[in-house]
Amino acid sequence: MHEKRFHGILARMKASSLMIHGGAGTGRESDRYHASLRGIVEVGARLLDEGASALDVVTRCVILLEDDPLYNAGCGSVLNVDGDVRLDASIMDGRHLEAGAIAGVRGVRNPVLLARTVMERSEHVFLIGAGAEEFARANDLIFADDTYFLSQERIGELEKAKAQQGVANKLGTVGAVARDKFGNLAAATSTGGLTNQARGRVGDSPIIGAGTYADNLTCAVSCTGIGEHLLRTTLARAASLLVELQGLGAAAAAQAAKQILVDRVQGLGGLIIIDKHGECAHAHSTPGMRTAWAKDGQIRVDIT
Amino acid sequence: MHEKRFHGILARMKASSLMIHGGAGTGRESDRYHASLRGIVEVGARLLDEGASALDVVTRCVILLEDDPLYNAGCGSVLNVDGDVRLDASIMDGRHLEAGAIAGVRGVRNPVLLARTVMERSEHVFLIGAGAEEFARANDLIFADDTYFLSQERIGELEKAKAQQGVANKLGTVGAVARDKFGNLAAATSTGGLTNQARGRVGDSPIIGAGTYADNLTCAVSCTGIGEHLLRTTLARAASLLVELQGLGAAAAAQAAKQILVDRVQGLGGLIIIDKHGECAHAHSTPGMRTAWAKDGQIRVDIT
Repeated sequence: MHEKRFHGILARMKASSLMIHGGAGTGRESDRYHASLRGIVEVGARLLDEGASALDVVTRCVILLEDDPLYNAGCGSVLNVDGDVRLDASIMDGRHLEAGAIAGVRGVRNPVLLARTVMERSEHVFLIGAGAEEFARANDLIFADDTYFLSQERIGELEKAKAQQGVANKLGTVGAVARDKFGNLAAATSTGGLTNQARGRVGDSPIIGAGTYADNLTCAVSCTGIGEHLLRTTLARAASLLVELQGLGAAAAAQAAKQILVDRVQGLGGLIIIDKHGECAHAHSTPGMRTAWAKDGQIRVDIT
Repeated sequence: MHEKRFHGILARMKASSLMIHGGAGTGRESDRYHASLRGIVEVGARLLDEGASALDVVTRCVILLEDDPLYNAGCGSVLNVDGDVRLDASIMDGRHLEAGAIAGVRGVRNPVLLARTVMERSEHVFLIGAGAEEFARANDLIFADDTYFLSQERIGELEKAKAQQGVANKLGTVGAVARDKFGNLAAATSTGGLTNQARGRVGDSPIIGAGTYADNLTCAVSCTGIGEHLLRTTLARAASLLVELQGLGAAAAAQAAKQILVDRVQGLGGLIIIDKHGECAHAHSTPGMRTAWAKDGQIRVDIT
């Protein structure tokens, strides 16, 4: 009886899939990105294999991406017009469409953890600025001082952007999507925004439906690119509804979503998708994108 | 020749439609709301009749709603946990999917005008907090002092909410959607949030795709209700994609969007829609909703 039940559970177990991105970019320094993305997706794949939830794995992968100074998120975040780092992140659990998001936050070491804490310990979905920081302190999130975030490289980028009197899009936003053995989906995204960006500017990364969406009935999505283009097309939710209403799989939905971005707002961006069947896909209108995924025991890194 | 061309232009002119809402609520004080909504929709309808753009008319209607202390937006905004007013608004132009949004802003008399200014004079879509206020000052938006926003009624509501140790949803968010004679669509939404709400909490009203969406190819939408439910379902964008991918008209799309809200997150909220053909509809899962519309020379006020 017990054995039968055990086999029943095994039979219901599904193959897990994981996909991460390190932004849309030019392929510069691709060796360093290659090693970083591979290492992080391996950690996530092992966790999924051990039975971890999609939610825990996207959280863990985005923490690792935030902790790697290569990317424009967490410790490697770019500097805004004040020479400050302002952090944005969001996370969504495909089981019950629970979500958490934060924007314009200073000093929190792992913004994705704060987004997750908003989802799990507040009655709200979206907290911004000082209110979000206060919530982080009340919930014992780890803060880091300015030296943790500031690097000569980022200071140089800000100086260059100021000299050119424009913003520079570092295109190193990070994200992860996963489907676990139980068939649950989750997505998370984190960014430091644009170099030299205006005070208070927020892009798509912390916006549920724009940068991040996950729904067990459709797919999990994380986007990257020019935030304004993704906000105007609410791209992650569009991808999810393409799956829901047109029955598209991950590859077709990624292409169709990219086409919305291009056709409707001449947009620059990209997205990663895992659909409810565990299929992985990405598409981008930028010259390149940095992605890695783990599926069926295989790891692939794709930097274009 | 000239006459022929003039008739050609007339033939291409379309019937205009306008719909506004004053939130989802209980129908309390319905006489006061009735007179207010009728007066505002009459102003908007006259402007549309005179050839004003949908964008100008939704801006004007939301300004009038913000200037009426009956509603939870602009001068009548509810007080947060600090006894402060924090304002959120968004606007979208269906012609090119241009959008502007602001959240967590203090002291700006007409938040919808600030959202529109972000759309028209910044390269960004979404500005929050002090950065948005600074942008408002730089662009000569009118500020009002605390006495403009504070009323005995709102102070009493905050005291009651604090005594009950909860937030109170005043359900008086405002919004407008319009289709002008040129067939262009626009939508706008504005709110003061929740009475006694946590510092930094942001709902759906300033989120493009959640509280507001407009696309000439589909429809214009403004939502109201429990912001968290609308954020998790990205409801305005869902309604637009139901029109786009399933060919639904306003009435069917409003019902289908409401059903997403109910089925997926047991959500409380409502929405108003005008589709690309000028059809008007609303739907809500709350006990009531306050709406008014102008179409084919008729004005209707519907407070349930």
